[in-house]
Amino acid sequence: MKNAEDIRALLGQRVRTLRMEAGLSQESFAEKCGLDRTYISGIERGTRNPTLEVLYILATALHTELATLFVFNEPG
Amino acid sequence: MKNAEDIRALLGQRVRTLRMEAGLSQESFAEKCGLDRTYISGIERGTRNPTLEVLYILATALHTELATLFVFNEPG
Repeated sequence: MKNAEDIRALLGQRVRTLRMEAGLSQESFAEKCGLDRTYISGIERGTRNPTLEVLYILATALHTELATLFVFNEPG
Repeated sequence: MKNAEDIRALLGQRVRTLRMEAGLSQESFAEKCGLDRTYISGIERGTRNPTLEVLYILATALHTELATLFVFNEPG
């Protein structure tokens, strides 16, 4: 089992990857989500612990499913 | 896009299904999670909005991956 910090970091990296694949800046992604850019930045850096509802907003703004946010490419 | 209530209800149903498939009562599942039984009950009824860290705890207690929690069988 990973610790809470690990899982926040994994999710943050995944969101960043998907956002960049979508060709969105943090600013424009934040606007699509209706969230503050600093909050998006915190999620991507793994310092925030987003709720289910926020995770759903992120997935929707990325035109993807919730499950897609949790496909982590882990080393080893 | 679904609303926040819908997504909490879908997640709650999914957690309940996985918990029952694992042969766990709400009480024993709550104990494995280190969470209160009433909190688990609220998640399953869709009244709670669990954080990423809580979702990870649920997945781990169910011996599954986070993504598995979000495989919804939706009508239509």
